[in-house]
Amino acid sequence: MTQFYSISEIEKLDKIYRANLINSISGLKPANLIGTKSASGQTNLAIFSSVIHLGANPALLGLIVRPAMVPRHSYENMRETGFFTINHVQKDITKKAHYTSAKFDKNISEFDVCGLTAEFQNDFFAPFVKESSIKIGLKLVDEIPIKLNGTILMIGKIEQIYFPKEIITETGNLELNMAESVCASGLETYYMPYKFAEFPYAKIDKLPQF
Amino acid sequence: MTQFYSISEIEKLDKIYRANLINSISGLKPANLIGTKSASGQTNLAIFSSVIHLGANPALLGLIVRPAMVPRHSYENMRETGFFTINHVQKDITKKAHYTSAKFDKNISEFDVCGLTAEFQNDFFAPFVKESSIKIGLKLVDEIPIKLNGTILMIGKIEQIYFPKEIITETGNLELNMAESVCASGLETYYMPYKFAEFPYAKIDKLPQF
Repeated sequence: MTQFYSISEIEKLDKIYRANLINSISGLKPANLIGTKSASGQTNLAIFSSVIHLGANPALLGLIVRPAMVPRHSYENMRETGFFTINHVQKDITKKAHYTSAKFDKNISEFDVCGLTAEFQNDFFAPFVKESSIKIGLKLVDEIPIKLNGTILMIGKIEQIYFPKEIITETGNLELNMAESVCASGLETYYMPYKFAEFPYAKIDKLPQF
Repeated sequence: MTQFYSISEIEKLDKIYRANLINSISGLKPANLIGTKSASGQTNLAIFSSVIHLGANPALLGLIVRPAMVPRHSYENMRETGFFTINHVQKDITKKAHYTSAKFDKNISEFDVCGLTAEFQNDFFAPFVKESSIKIGLKLVDEIPIKLNGTILMIGKIEQIYFPKEIITETGNLELNMAESVCASGLETYYMPYKFAEFPYAKIDKLPQF
């Protein structure tokens, strides 16, 4: 049986129920840890499911932040210093990654309280997560306000990447199942992917039978 | 062994290899079909992996489009008519969904050539995908240019949603594994999720042992 809701019915739903429904209806989301450091040297780590690919050349990724909500330490550090890291959540650190979302004081590092390790390498300003296998160092290059709801699209240019050599294919794709990268749905549920299909670049003169 | 690339090394990589690497490094992406109809009545369907949750109240989703690339029929129809649908790709329609990315002429409907069914319901202007179990009807409410690379963030307000009654939990989360919603990595690889963890809302006074 199909459940149908119109916008007027959605707006009448209980607040938490509606938030969970709308957070899960867009589909599976990548689970990433955002690493930052304040100008005074305080590290910060927070889980985000709003990382998005914007383009390969230049290599740009985006991230939606809600600065009106506490904690907003990641956002403040990104603006103050211009640098951040994106680190994949792997299956074995999912619990630690989830709890970085608790509202810790700014002078507390989520690395310490959640049992993850800040790693500084190749002169990059922001901390990587040592336990993550896929890591990206980015420079903040634009900040686009989304006026409709007060969120902001933060845009980073990729400056450094790290991944296990054995997970890249001959054509440059990363095998995310080998990396055990996880995805999230809503605000509390985590999924592991398994690969079941690969198709070539689609051309109109080479369509398969459906 | 870890592979490290700096930005100068990334820029020297073969173009296709680099595109695949940067398209897969941000993590798993939701696979969705975007349904539109032109003012003259021509339906269009295209697979996108750039849908993003922007907020639950108002219920807003975003979509990154690259209007400089052909085909751009989805983008043109969205602007011309103000409406579009987001339909989850389920495992059993993944192959059909993938081939909607071929460069068909504007007077050809991807519904027809890829073997999917356009469904009109509850007076919504744009076509839903009958074969999808989770479907969202949206009104285009903003269009934000990303000047750094010529892409555009299209913002839709949710007007209608459809999902199977049996996949919603008591708290309003959709069980995406029950819906067999798939995610994508890069441009050619598809993954099925299985749920392995759920955690409560994180509070600093209720941290688990790590």
